[in-house]
Amino acid sequence: MNRIYFDNAATTSLDNEVLQAMMPFLTDKFGNPSSIYSYGRETKMAIESARKNVAKTLNAHPSEIFFTSGGTESNNTAISTSIRDLGCKHIITSVIEHHAVTHTVEHLAKQFSIKVSYVNLLPNGHVDILHLEKLLSDNKDKTLVSLMHANNEIGNMLDWHTVGNICKKYNAVFHSDTVQTVGHFPIDLRNTPVHFITGAAHKFHGPKGVGMLYINENVRINPFIFGGGQERNMRAGTENLYGIVGFSKALELATVNHDSDKIQISDIKKYMYDQLKLHINGVDFNGDVLGQSLYTVLSVSFPKTEKSEMLLFNLDINNICASGGSACASGAEAGSHVIRAINYNPNQITVRFSFCKHNTKEEVDVVIQKLKEVL
Amino acid sequence: MNRIYFDNAATTSLDNEVLQAMMPFLTDKFGNPSSIYSYGRETKMAIESARKNVAKTLNAHPSEIFFTSGGTESNNTAISTSIRDLGCKHIITSVIEHHAVTHTVEHLAKQFSIKVSYVNLLPNGHVDILHLEKLLSDNKDKTLVSLMHANNEIGNMLDWHTVGNICKKYNAVFHSDTVQTVGHFPIDLRNTPVHFITGAAHKFHGPKGVGMLYINENVRINPFIFGGGQERNMRAGTENLYGIVGFSKALELATVNHDSDKIQISDIKKYMYDQLKLHINGVDFNGDVLGQSLYTVLSVSFPKTEKSEMLLFNLDINNICASGGSACASGAEAGSHVIRAINYNPNQITVRFSFCKHNTKEEVDVVIQKLKEVL
Repeated sequence: MNRIYFDNAATTSLDNEVLQAMMPFLTDKFGNPSSIYSYGRETKMAIESARKNVAKTLNAHPSEIFFTSGGTESNNTAISTSIRDLGCKHIITSVIEHHAVTHTVEHLAKQFSIKVSYVNLLPNGHVDILHLEKLLSDNKDKTLVSLMHANNEIGNMLDWHTVGNICKKYNAVFHSDTVQTVGHFPIDLRNTPVHFITGAAHKFHGPKGVGMLYINENVRINPFIFGGGQERNMRAGTENLYGIVGFSKALELATVNHDSDKIQISDIKKYMYDQLKLHINGVDFNGDVLGQSLYTVLSVSFPKTEKSEMLLFNLDINNICASGGSACASGAEAGSHVIRAINYNPNQITVRFSFCKHNTKEEVDVVIQKLKEVL
Repeated sequence: MNRIYFDNAATTSLDNEVLQAMMPFLTDKFGNPSSIYSYGRETKMAIESARKNVAKTLNAHPSEIFFTSGGTESNNTAISTSIRDLGCKHIITSVIEHHAVTHTVEHLAKQFSIKVSYVNLLPNGHVDILHLEKLLSDNKDKTLVSLMHANNEIGNMLDWHTVGNICKKYNAVFHSDTVQTVGHFPIDLRNTPVHFITGAAHKFHGPKGVGMLYINENVRINPFIFGGGQERNMRAGTENLYGIVGFSKALELATVNHDSDKIQISDIKKYMYDQLKLHINGVDFNGDVLGQSLYTVLSVSFPKTEKSEMLLFNLDINNICASGGSACASGAEAGSHVIRAINYNPNQITVRFSFCKHNTKEEVDVVIQKLKEVL
């Protein structure tokens, strides 16, 4: 029985073309990029060429792109340094951010007595922009606004141009967790009013263990991790050379194929949505599912029954990978903080299906058939 | 002309056997280790089995081993959390630590008004143990002692049992940067009085971008990076799956072959030492070169002349990789802070040669010949 992998928001497979780009650096070209001899400069050049490539794709300057160990480290860095170096004494965020943001905010708020305000959410899960502006205008302290570009569980996309312009008006720092959109959505940083964005290669068919932090050129922070002079003194530690090369290659492929991938994946999402409505009684969807939403994510709620409570387990037995929410929180068994916040219905069981270019409508048919059998 | 790579303290080649262990996770087995379905549990098991393997090798408990993005992050975490969570208000360290320690200490000392004391060094570069004890006995504040197990530039090895016992006597926290010894030296943590040690796979023929932090089971700290529940809630972020598998495999191979590798590499170091003395006028060595020293590192000082000032450049032209000091600081061109501290002689030029199991005496002969030609 072939595996059906509908959990691409958790992680994606590594593209063979990306692996091939990484292979020389996993074999012959192992020099330390910080070494001054030519063998080290060769790997340094690979890193700098990756940086240029990423910067070009995101319409940023190479000096604004920093490689990190992943999206979580990038989000931690943006938030921590906004408090430590940019003088932010107030954070506005939402309760449906990824834990890489919420837990960092909670911890720092406690350690440094930072005030945290949570912006109201509309019934469809979108941020209440009027409330955001009120929070900003009511507060005199330097503020960090941390709102994700696309929600990893329900797919809702933020109108980040509007949010960024409001932040500008109130002189607030704007950080957006873009881990679900880098590699899935055309990003034009020169024309987006944002100070920090983040990315993780494994979300778009790149390697795990490598991420990116964009820091707008007007922002001056100190390092989060101290040591050697790597990443222009901003992120110490011998570089994850293959990871960085893989990040760049994966982003390049994602960008080249974006339009066709998007059409194909949107089509699968819509097909699954339609088939679920057609075949499963009482099915419900979370977020702005067919509106301002990721084309990759479909959050579905099923009526709670003895059978649906075992749903993920039964899908697993049938070799279908889907999740209850964020993978990062799956271990917790506490249910999804996102679903609880926007649509808490104790009589529903929520499953996130998330798609990639390798998925097909035939796979959707198999999953629908299994759902009919199981429920 | 074949490359002669004598810079193994900067980074080492990835063993093919390690790469082969990583390959399944770079291709088929890409599931997110935090996912609850069996496909995710498979990769979770690979990580936990790596953890057990590493713990067993170091004679620690698996719950004491945390995977990170590298030695630098590990060192940052140990020092930062000692101040934030363990109440340390005083740090004793030395001026010849790696920048991952010195720069972290300098930054945190400034941010949190922490007192820093630098232990005296003996002429051979070893820590003055009596001074260390005096610093501890003179100070009433909770203290963190951060002293590296082996110096990356001169190779000197700390008597860490003695240091650990002194720390115990004064109830100090003891962190030892072991980036140059994990994978090169048998470590028995159950019988070593240390609270934190660190490792980086790329120093012992494992992959770049992955490291380890040992936290003694009696130490309770909060995370340094916040987010998902990875690494038992201690280090958030989707795991560098292949990196972790590679770390474990590389450490396993290093341990199995330790005795024979050590004999072979020590032999090369001694041979190079002898040949240098024999053939190069005025040559000098830094640190306790044939005493308590890494068998992998040989720090050599040449009389400063017009020719020796171009030495690294000329070695590079001849495809010989060696460094002026730590790779992490090579970009800085400021000279080595280690050499400056222990043996500052403006009339000398220092080169670090560092060896691995792939090196041969024939390579030493070639390098000696080139040195004779160049100088």
